[in-house]
Amino acid sequence: MIAKKMQSLVDNNSVIRQMFEEGRKMAKEFGEENVYDFSLGNPNVPAPEKVKETIGRLILEEDPISLHGYMSNAGYPEVRAKIAASLNKRFGTSFHEDNILMTVGAAGGLNCALKALINPGDEVIAFAPFFLEYKNYVANFEGVLVVVDPDTKTFQPDLADFEKKITPETRAVIINNPNNPTGVIYSEETIKKIAKILREKGQEYDTEIFLISDEPYRELVYTGAEVPYITKYYENTIVGYSFSKTLSLPGERIGYLVIPDEAADHERLYQAVTIANRVLGFVNAPSLFQKVVAECLEEKADISYYGRNRDVLYDALTGYGFECIRPEGAFYMFIKSPAEDEKEFVEAAKKHHILLVPGTSFMCGGYVRLAYCVSYETCVNSLPGFEKLAEEFGLKK
Amino acid sequence: MIAKKMQSLVDNNSVIRQMFEEGRKMAKEFGEENVYDFSLGNPNVPAPEKVKETIGRLILEEDPISLHGYMSNAGYPEVRAKIAASLNKRFGTSFHEDNILMTVGAAGGLNCALKALINPGDEVIAFAPFFLEYKNYVANFEGVLVVVDPDTKTFQPDLADFEKKITPETRAVIINNPNNPTGVIYSEETIKKIAKILREKGQEYDTEIFLISDEPYRELVYTGAEVPYITKYYENTIVGYSFSKTLSLPGERIGYLVIPDEAADHERLYQAVTIANRVLGFVNAPSLFQKVVAECLEEKADISYYGRNRDVLYDALTGYGFECIRPEGAFYMFIKSPAEDEKEFVEAAKKHHILLVPGTSFMCGGYVRLAYCVSYETCVNSLPGFEKLAEEFGLKK
Repeated sequence: MIAKKMQSLVDNNSVIRQMFEEGRKMAKEFGEENVYDFSLGNPNVPAPEKVKETIGRLILEEDPISLHGYMSNAGYPEVRAKIAASLNKRFGTSFHEDNILMTVGAAGGLNCALKALINPGDEVIAFAPFFLEYKNYVANFEGVLVVVDPDTKTFQPDLADFEKKITPETRAVIINNPNNPTGVIYSEETIKKIAKILREKGQEYDTEIFLISDEPYRELVYTGAEVPYITKYYENTIVGYSFSKTLSLPGERIGYLVIPDEAADHERLYQAVTIANRVLGFVNAPSLFQKVVAECLEEKADISYYGRNRDVLYDALTGYGFECIRPEGAFYMFIKSPAEDEKEFVEAAKKHHILLVPGTSFMCGGYVRLAYCVSYETCVNSLPGFEKLAEEFGLKK
Repeated sequence: MIAKKMQSLVDNNSVIRQMFEEGRKMAKEFGEENVYDFSLGNPNVPAPEKVKETIGRLILEEDPISLHGYMSNAGYPEVRAKIAASLNKRFGTSFHEDNILMTVGAAGGLNCALKALINPGDEVIAFAPFFLEYKNYVANFEGVLVVVDPDTKTFQPDLADFEKKITPETRAVIINNPNNPTGVIYSEETIKKIAKILREKGQEYDTEIFLISDEPYRELVYTGAEVPYITKYYENTIVGYSFSKTLSLPGERIGYLVIPDEAADHERLYQAVTIANRVLGFVNAPSLFQKVVAECLEEKADISYYGRNRDVLYDALTGYGFECIRPEGAFYMFIKSPAEDEKEFVEAAKKHHILLVPGTSFMCGGYVRLAYCVSYETCVNSLPGFEKLAEEFGLKK
């Protein structure tokens, strides 16, 4: 009945839904406070106070017709100019308003970028482990997702495998920095190497390969580590940004794309992405929140909250004998499963009321993702369960 | 460089952009008040006061984590339940929360519905004249748009031509009621006839054909005429609704789909559309505005303003000898061009600083669309220009 392409999506979705329902059932049976749900990347730190103040001020001061009205499909020019100026100040770039395109979150932005770039059969490369939704986004436009094997030692991209997987059909590469699900940050050195490989391969095949950086976690960095701004290292780049995590506004669907002047055929590309925004049915990013974020570019939700969660979990879990890279950004840990099939471990964890996502959901079996955007109490109270799991699986302290 | 499918969209877009730029140039040269821009369907009546009050109350009273957070991809269940109850009260339907799916405007909703329904090569029928964006929406999913010829006497659908154009490949029919660009309302009798034809043809070909009704103008009705609720007349229906016009919130991108229990494979279809909402990158309808519209279901922007514009324009223009159906809804008039090629008339109108859209943009040449969601002064002050145009083209009073 439903479209053929949707059938497997609906069938697989029921598996995830079962997980949600199981979590809800567990919360009912054992009490909300006794279930440690680390399965979702939903920020649990409130939006900065200035978001509330700005909404309150805008509805009082602005003409509702322009506050809630249509604008250019690319977004309010003054909002785009403010974002460009803020990026320039922070990263030493030289963007102007026509490098910025307001989007319905980063997810909306990535879809518009891919629609503008991809012909059926074009290949798009992603580095495992990655947010599996990229596969669906690429499939929306009849593209083919090509997966670079994970380097499970560092979870930095495996550049040797990357180089091998670039073909004349490669149209784009998606990176996610800081990374979901590992919390790793791709260093400047890594970005430079990726740029060099793309330039060489582009020359070899006489193609233009786009580097798309999905950066909803850019501001969620704990260690003072720098997240390199990719437009400075390579010409054909697109940055996808979202305010979902930085300002704790995931439901409001507000983000932007950066399309630098240096990108091939910039003007036409910017126009194509703007039209994609329209014809895919987004039309424009939500108008009130465009104006809100423009006033909150210096704001951040309280990220130290996530940092504290990371520290308590990382220290305890590695103390129990779990293997894990210490996350530098985002709010995820990617833990090596003590059972070969991580689904076995996920099931065992459920018995301790701990909910984790299997690594196969990120194209990297043998690992599990823990999302620590939860209350500090949830982290602390989950520890005895993790300790017992370590014992059950015979981990050495 | 950009994707092949986008190239003609970019090329054609420049034509529309030229129109905008010309309008802006004219406003600069002759003064804003001396340019009569009837080209855009952007509401010019402010949102009801209750929208502002509700936003102000929600940001003070609600927990920002849930107010701006993720929820089910289908939207907040309590919002969906309220909308279902409101529809039931007004139309005698029996919807529940799982018949309602919150979307990023009607445009977002239509795209999700089409993604859930259409296989490559499937045919989707639209009645000319129609909002040309339907063609792009159908093309997003490799569907083929089949156009039913206009009945220029009444601008009701030509049902004889409709019947002929249904094939075994027909998967869906899109209607737009009240209609953009004609302002006509499809009567109950028309809807019953469409339903009968679809049932017969579905039986003949052993197919299930969906009737999708795009209804952003449902509440913009001047004459007390009823807009029939299609779910009562046919089983396989989807209604697309938007608050853009009713509450003057077009920039906020908030609407919903109705997928009734009677639709074939309802549960799986609802799930497929919900997943389409996610994988197309909408993720969910903007969260704050979901809660705002749920509190404003009895509200309407001041529609009498548009009614007054309609009356002054319709009476004057027909008085000058222009031919036009008196609009019953929406805020458009579809005027017969006094020149065979309506672009000639559009050019002549520009000389009087009047901006109109050629009917070819709605698959119906020989007509022009006038959008009267402008100030009353714009309407009144444009009349001398129209009178001169009538003289130039030799129309009889």
